[in-house]
Amino acid sequence: MVKAGILGGGQLGRMLLQAAANYPVETFVMENDPQCPAAHLCHHFVKGDIGDFDDVYNFGKNLEAITIEIESVNEDALAKLEEEGVRIYPKPEALKVIKDKVKQKKFYESFSIPTAPFIVTQSREDITAHLDFLPAVHKLGTGGYDGRGVQIIKNREDIPKGFDKPGVLEKQINIHKEIAMIVAVNDTAQTTLYPPVDMVFDPSLNLLDYQISPAELSENVLWKTEAIALKVVKELKSPGIFAVELFIDKEGEVYVNETAPRVHNSGHHTIEASYSSQFDMLWRIILNYPLGNTAAILPAAIVNLLGEDGYSGNAEYDGLEEVLRMDNVFVHIYGKAQTKPGRKMGHVTIISKDRQDLIFKKNRIKNTLKVISREKE
Amino acid sequence: MVKAGILGGGQLGRMLLQAAANYPVETFVMENDPQCPAAHLCHHFVKGDIGDFDDVYNFGKNLEAITIEIESVNEDALAKLEEEGVRIYPKPEALKVIKDKVKQKKFYESFSIPTAPFIVTQSREDITAHLDFLPAVHKLGTGGYDGRGVQIIKNREDIPKGFDKPGVLEKQINIHKEIAMIVAVNDTAQTTLYPPVDMVFDPSLNLLDYQISPAELSENVLWKTEAIALKVVKELKSPGIFAVELFIDKEGEVYVNETAPRVHNSGHHTIEASYSSQFDMLWRIILNYPLGNTAAILPAAIVNLLGEDGYSGNAEYDGLEEVLRMDNVFVHIYGKAQTKPGRKMGHVTIISKDRQDLIFKKNRIKNTLKVISREKE
Repeated sequence: MVKAGILGGGQLGRMLLQAAANYPVETFVMENDPQCPAAHLCHHFVKGDIGDFDDVYNFGKNLEAITIEIESVNEDALAKLEEEGVRIYPKPEALKVIKDKVKQKKFYESFSIPTAPFIVTQSREDITAHLDFLPAVHKLGTGGYDGRGVQIIKNREDIPKGFDKPGVLEKQINIHKEIAMIVAVNDTAQTTLYPPVDMVFDPSLNLLDYQISPAELSENVLWKTEAIALKVVKELKSPGIFAVELFIDKEGEVYVNETAPRVHNSGHHTIEASYSSQFDMLWRIILNYPLGNTAAILPAAIVNLLGEDGYSGNAEYDGLEEVLRMDNVFVHIYGKAQTKPGRKMGHVTIISKDRQDLIFKKNRIKNTLKVISREKE
Repeated sequence: MVKAGILGGGQLGRMLLQAAANYPVETFVMENDPQCPAAHLCHHFVKGDIGDFDDVYNFGKNLEAITIEIESVNEDALAKLEEEGVRIYPKPEALKVIKDKVKQKKFYESFSIPTAPFIVTQSREDITAHLDFLPAVHKLGTGGYDGRGVQIIKNREDIPKGFDKPGVLEKQINIHKEIAMIVAVNDTAQTTLYPPVDMVFDPSLNLLDYQISPAELSENVLWKTEAIALKVVKELKSPGIFAVELFIDKEGEVYVNETAPRVHNSGHHTIEASYSSQFDMLWRIILNYPLGNTAAILPAAIVNLLGEDGYSGNAEYDGLEEVLRMDNVFVHIYGKAQTKPGRKMGHVTIISKDRQDLIFKKNRIKNTLKVISREKE
């Protein structure tokens, strides 16, 4: 059996390991928290710091392949392991480009990949020199994750919200919609694309409301998103799974927002709605099997299950029974003991031929299922 | 989180644990072999003998619920645990009835559930007294599994193949087809049925060739199979998942062959082809959630992947790449290190709207994928 490791033990690792159990593979996970969602589903759990050179190097040196479920890993250790013959998904060079938003934006620019105009900033103070560039989005170069590390700077008054570390100031696009394209690439650079996903935001809260796939796009826009997503992945020159997030403006122009070099929240519906899920696909890539079929069995929507505001402590799932009674709904609880506001605690997938049914059910789920705690904040 | 245990760590345990990772449940497995397919997918693996009273009792005494993935467990320990408040799926009383083929046949008889006529035998010698009852099938009372413990006795010459232990001699039915019905029952005796599965045998080898669902049955026969399957489960008076195997003769009469009180090979296609799989359903029952939706998303076929004749040793999967290239096929390899002739090493599920596509693909898979070993016998 191939010995394969995952750096990080969150829900992405958990779902990767659920899929791994269909294949002959010996799995290893490294993560600091032995209670993390993936810890109990691997053959070998190793407690360690994924950001530490020695921990990552020692974890990987006897493995044939390594993947990641979060970007904040020690890529120097991965580079050394790669030199020594360990296969890394994604390649450390690609990871370096993506991890740093400054490098990532320059990468798009250097390959003429459309992306919002930007200015590199070294400090909060730098924003002041570019008032005519506002409204803009200030993005922290490294260390941002899940919405942290991004601030909207509309005008001079917002500048204190900016980051006092290297980052990019990105011109705000007049966004019509935001979509995600999941791309799979194998060791011989063969690629396959999943149908695009509409990431639908709540206009009042400015938060992701739900995701629906396939996205509703005109032929012309679909063609552009596919071409751009493939171009991004081609120039990253790395096998793996990539989620390319794109903005589409009111004129139908397409811009890359950012890319994740790993399985991604926007692809969770592929577990039930696709012939080969993003998790299945990554194992096919790691194990050198043929790429899977990305076609949709049925259209799907995803609702993320976030820790409810005002609750921190032992997680409880209020309304879970009612949701489990819905007939075309799949519940995924990540098994995190503790909830806190906004923490990703699970997701629910709905599949249906009928788009109206997807929307109806996602509303019911959002109104019904809440992650709370009796230990009120 | 509910603490739930599984007795046995084979492929059924493995698939149960893949499904468990969608729910907040702390999982325990007991099995003698720490390398078994399920060992690495639970929170807590306990090495122990599932047939031993003390091992089972000590395993279960701190759990809230226990299920089994094989019948050969110590049911006395389960009965004691049940007395002490542990929820057992299936109930030990139901397990006792099913484990012993003699008791099982008498159970059907006592509730007027149609089943082939039978004679209880204490020894091989007993068959001699019933020559006019031949051709018949001799079944070992306890300890048979996966085809072992069953012998066809056509005439006097076959009697030496019979078992010299308590068993039943069952009149051979003129079988038109064999089907399986998976039934789910929760703690409040609510039931739900999966669509019936055709178990198609190879007439020359007398071995299961493949399974296809939904089975092709006339309305009249479907109605009878559903009524009989529900009656069996009702009289067993136990929550859990049950697979009721039925014979249908050329006249459309339906007979119960036997019942398994657990998730079953004939239900593996439900993982991809149903809204709630048999594994998902068992967790819903154990965790006191609402029963799931048994409807099929698409028709499905299953091919079992058995160790090829003539090979014993480290398993290799010849032809796996070609099968993974097929576009509506799902491969499940159970991760058993060693193959031997006839050992269940995995299964492949095909889903398609088109029955001809199911048949075509199952033939290709059977001709392509072989579990072999370089260490030839």
